[in-house]
Amino acid sequence: MTHKEIIDEMKSLDADIIRLGHISALLEWDQETMMPSKAVEERAEQSALMVGLHHQHIVNPRWKELFSSWEALGENPSDETEEAFLREVKSRWEKKTRVPKELAKKMAAAASRSQAAWAEARMKNDFEAFAPSLEAMVQLQRQYALAIAPDADPYDTLLGEYEPGAKSDDVQKVFDELAQGLRGLMSKIQQGTAPNTDFLKQSFSTTQQDEFGRQVQEAMGYDYERGRLDLSAHPFTTTLGPDDVRVTTRYDAKLLLSGLFSNIHEAGHGLYEQGMGSLLRKTILADGASLGIHESQSRFWENMVGRSLAFWTHWFPKLQKLFPQELQSIQLKEFYDAVNEVCPSLIRVEADEVTYSFHIIARFRLEQALIRGELEVNDLPQAWNQAYKDLLGIDVPDDAQGCMQDVHWSVGLFGYFPTYALGNLYAAQFSSAMETELGSLQEILRQGSLQPILDWLRCNIHEPGRTDLPQTLCQKVTGHELSSTHFLEYLENKYAQIYHF
Amino acid sequence: MTHKEIIDEMKSLDADIIRLGHISALLEWDQETMMPSKAVEERAEQSALMVGLHHQHIVNPRWKELFSSWEALGENPSDETEEAFLREVKSRWEKKTRVPKELAKKMAAAASRSQAAWAEARMKNDFEAFAPSLEAMVQLQRQYALAIAPDADPYDTLLGEYEPGAKSDDVQKVFDELAQGLRGLMSKIQQGTAPNTDFLKQSFSTTQQDEFGRQVQEAMGYDYERGRLDLSAHPFTTTLGPDDVRVTTRYDAKLLLSGLFSNIHEAGHGLYEQGMGSLLRKTILADGASLGIHESQSRFWENMVGRSLAFWTHWFPKLQKLFPQELQSIQLKEFYDAVNEVCPSLIRVEADEVTYSFHIIARFRLEQALIRGELEVNDLPQAWNQAYKDLLGIDVPDDAQGCMQDVHWSVGLFGYFPTYALGNLYAAQFSSAMETELGSLQEILRQGSLQPILDWLRCNIHEPGRTDLPQTLCQKVTGHELSSTHFLEYLENKYAQIYHF
Repeated sequence: MTHKEIIDEMKSLDADIIRLGHISALLEWDQETMMPSKAVEERAEQSALMVGLHHQHIVNPRWKELFSSWEALGENPSDETEEAFLREVKSRWEKKTRVPKELAKKMAAAASRSQAAWAEARMKNDFEAFAPSLEAMVQLQRQYALAIAPDADPYDTLLGEYEPGAKSDDVQKVFDELAQGLRGLMSKIQQGTAPNTDFLKQSFSTTQQDEFGRQVQEAMGYDYERGRLDLSAHPFTTTLGPDDVRVTTRYDAKLLLSGLFSNIHEAGHGLYEQGMGSLLRKTILADGASLGIHESQSRFWENMVGRSLAFWTHWFPKLQKLFPQELQSIQLKEFYDAVNEVCPSLIRVEADEVTYSFHIIARFRLEQALIRGELEVNDLPQAWNQAYKDLLGIDVPDDAQGCMQDVHWSVGLFGYFPTYALGNLYAAQFSSAMETELGSLQEILRQGSLQPILDWLRCNIHEPGRTDLPQTLCQKVTGHELSSTHFLEYLENKYAQIYHF
Repeated sequence: MTHKEIIDEMKSLDADIIRLGHISALLEWDQETMMPSKAVEERAEQSALMVGLHHQHIVNPRWKELFSSWEALGENPSDETEEAFLREVKSRWEKKTRVPKELAKKMAAAASRSQAAWAEARMKNDFEAFAPSLEAMVQLQRQYALAIAPDADPYDTLLGEYEPGAKSDDVQKVFDELAQGLRGLMSKIQQGTAPNTDFLKQSFSTTQQDEFGRQVQEAMGYDYERGRLDLSAHPFTTTLGPDDVRVTTRYDAKLLLSGLFSNIHEAGHGLYEQGMGSLLRKTILADGASLGIHESQSRFWENMVGRSLAFWTHWFPKLQKLFPQELQSIQLKEFYDAVNEVCPSLIRVEADEVTYSFHIIARFRLEQALIRGELEVNDLPQAWNQAYKDLLGIDVPDDAQGCMQDVHWSVGLFGYFPTYALGNLYAAQFSSAMETELGSLQEILRQGSLQPILDWLRCNIHEPGRTDLPQTLCQKVTGHELSSTHFLEYLENKYAQIYHF
């Protein structure tokens, strides 16, 4: 076979694998947004069937022949994209073929049982009832990691599932610096003047919330001809095809900010997916470089754009028009301060921009210890509560609001949490690189058009998709490896104004 | 292998085939109701991939082994359902394996090209531009029929795709009687007094139309926890799982009746699908006995229930409440007469209950002649116009409104049209059997509850699904083979009152 024949056949096989993934995404999207309530059971079987077909296509023996033919040819990839394509399809194939069928089956069954056990135990605040399931998940994840890479640190392997190329030592170093910086910042904030947030406790019509949310998404550049916005219990973004990237949100009349920032956050993810380069279409490379990079896009828009004074200078008058009664007497600066209130709290998903990272750092340390066998599952609640005391300075009243608040570990997602905090760090570092080229972000935002920002993101982050590993992408775009410096600087500058220190 | 082992493995293989079909149905439903406009091309490729996987599962060589094992066993099926199951899975397998791959590919490609050619030719009213594509479809359909059943009449084979067990000679006999009866009825109607329909030309809010449509669907027994109602360009019903049967409709403020009767028609289809017996779940038998039987369910509800005086005795006051301005001065009988206006017209989908069958009879005669080579494609327009003159007494001004009005032939659907008219005949014959058991349908309707009607349909038509061939089902339920007698009697009685003859 020639170079071209091998690559073409791989692309054709890959396109079907990507397509099967997109079809599964439709099954899930429909389940969360449209599906009638009684169809749950059958939908699970449909999804399982699609997962099986997806797996079959990935382990198709033809891949092995094509990899051998490629090696026998002894040629170099013709460009960076082809090199990345070969790296990604090979890594996908290796992972799937290295995991014994028996283990994969066990993992799927255990995850499903464990999630159910978690939901019940959380409701009853009964960690002991959940512990055996969690223990099983820890063991299975360790086995899984060793099956994929027998000689590597299992936690690094798991982390690499979500953040390819990341090493836990590097992440730990960055997180330690981050924790230290945030602690200093928090003590200043806690001595400052807390903003008034009373007016946010009013009721805000969800119809108007939706109208505003759509206006903002459209201004960001989210393309409704290649996507759509719907309601779901938990907001998410999903890709059903290169021209079909859907976002969801939820509105609550009592929680204006929750819906609003969900709209912006998910559109941030959506813009990334809608912005993949046309040469990558229908290939494995038309995907986020990592979960951390994906999260950098949603958090950049949500926090650095959506929670900035310049953004609201333009948008607050429009919001006031939609809610004249509720917001007429509120000043721009008052609103801006309120959306940036900092307050250490128990629950990760409700945390503000400053304290959020503490929640992640706690989880990162604990899950490493669990996977490495340095922490027993039975000792998790105590370790969790200690971490929250140390990092956030708060007492955890019970495990339901403590170590059982998130679904992740119950379904075997270890190594996933760090990507949320990495997203914040990447966002700040990218933002700083953007300012070097475009000038002050606040100045651009004050002018009202978000287009220059999107253009920069398209060119630097979105179009390359998964071509580079996240570390390489970061180096290329910012000239440095990831650090907490830019994020801490950003927070320091911003909150000094809000909390007057 | 034991009897049980064979059947169990067949059921397991069949369940996946059914599931793949349901997943394809979701892809189509989403495309018609939700999908963003620019996703069309990729969705076509996703659908093609699913069609390919569906095909692979049907022709899986394991089926042949299982059929052989079953024969070697020399046992009889343990009951009627098992017998039907074996009949259907074998027939599905035979059909797919008998059609050469090359021909199947050619057919798919030709259909796609031909539909595009039809759409353009119809727009330009240029039959000559469409003729070569149509000629190709006729030839391919003939080849397809001969591949499946080399010794049978090709048209009978095609008809059997949609109406299993039907023979064109029998259908012709019934249709000839029907045409004769309808001609007599039409001459009486045309001498009668036409109803006043002016008030229908007002504008009716589509929000209120939707509210009313949902009320009626719910009263019919359509279960929104196992389905949903959405908007689409063309109303349809689709099954995405045993507990997920979705219907669509369309509203136009200027066309009150169109939306209303679409709601009832599709809910009629939906009730059939939602009513399949629980023992048939996830098998090939959880399906309509034929397209004709399926259409009998939609048309029974739409025409025999939804266009009856007794139905409106109950529902017209509710409709008036929703449209007080528009309908306050209209009498029940006036409204009833208006929804039953008879008027020969050019376009099938706009035809009334009486003249509708003429449109089908014309197509049935013409498509038989095309497939049998008794009519050249080039002569179709003339033959079409002659048939419309003979049956409906109207002149066809151009081919766009004539032989190019329907998409069916352009995509190779020959033998499909008759099922629409068979639906009317089955509906009337079933209705008559129902009245023998339950008493007058009009009396039940006047009492306002539709439950006894649904119960009868559930038990006699819905629950058996595809267990019996349509001819057997008709014989079992009504005691007779299908004839036009009941339908003609029903029309005669109804229209004598409306047109006062």
